[in-house]
Amino acid sequence: MTSHVKLRKEKTGTVDYDIQIKEVRCQLVDQLKVLDLKLEQKTQQLQDLTDYLRRRGEIENEYARSLEKLAERFSSKTKSQTSVLRKDTTTNSVSQVWVALLTHTRQESKDHSEISESCSNVLIQPLTNCLDYTQRLARKVSLQPQQCTKKPWVLDKSTSLY
Amino acid sequence: MTSHVKLRKEKTGTVDYDIQIKEVRCQLVDQLKVLDLKLEQKTQQLQDLTDYLRRRGEIENEYARSLEKLAERFSSKTKSQTSVLRKDTTTNSVSQVWVALLTHTRQESKDHSEISESCSNVLIQPLTNCLDYTQRLARKVSLQPQQCTKKPWVLDKSTSLY
Repeated sequence: MTSHVKLRKEKTGTVDYDIQIKEVRCQLVDQLKVLDLKLEQKTQQLQDLTDYLRRRGEIENEYARSLEKLAERFSSKTKSQTSVLRKDTTTNSVSQVWVALLTHTRQESKDHSEISESCSNVLIQPLTNCLDYTQRLARKVSLQPQQCTKKPWVLDKSTSLY
Repeated sequence: MTSHVKLRKEKTGTVDYDIQIKEVRCQLVDQLKVLDLKLEQKTQQLQDLTDYLRRRGEIENEYARSLEKLAERFSSKTKSQTSVLRKDTTTNSVSQVWVALLTHTRQESKDHSEISESCSNVLIQPLTNCLDYTQRLARKVSLQPQQCTKKPWVLDKSTSLY
């Protein structure tokens, strides 16, 4: 009778343990789902930001090249005129205006070329690293539920020893 | 004999006057040539400046439109994400960054659109007026030599009265 009660108690303890393990497993699976969703959102955000910077870099580059071409076109045009009319003070003042205007245009072109470089390379690099890290994390997370499904069987075997 | 001398003196006076008139006419024609050249240069300068501003206006407009499209594209994309993840504080901070970034992009687009408007209309208008005025002046100058060629005949007639 005593051994029967002892066996019953042991069986009840094993069942409680199984229930607890199942509950923890369910909680873990739920938390992993939340983490998985968050990782997915983060990946999307990083991807969007990378896309924005890549396109912005292209736009800045196009703008810089257009300004450079414009400056180049009028630089050669006004240079030939200036060389012909060097002694005329009025023309000199106009040519000075041209020099200032084209210098300013070239400077703007350079500035936007640097912004393009920053967008396309400098800023994208840490984002790409972050994206890689997030994706590695996402892969690990996607493997966790399998491990969770395996573990209880291991635990079930171990608990059967009690 | 006295009337013969008088007639001779009158004839010599008329010949001197004709020579002086011819000299003045030659000087005037030379000066008109210089003025004509200057007007041509001015017209070219104004035309170049107008061409520069027109092309600059186009470049600024293209840049402004590209930025506006970029902001529009990511605005609709991030809005849908933000509405899904409104309660998440991390996502909110990221969405705040997006709002700031897109607001800045739109502001830049507006600024460059205004520069485009200034280049294509506001700044070109006085230049076009100035160009019209210069061309009218050039037309007048080109008519001057004809008048100069006519005038001496008129003067010759009047001098023949002395």
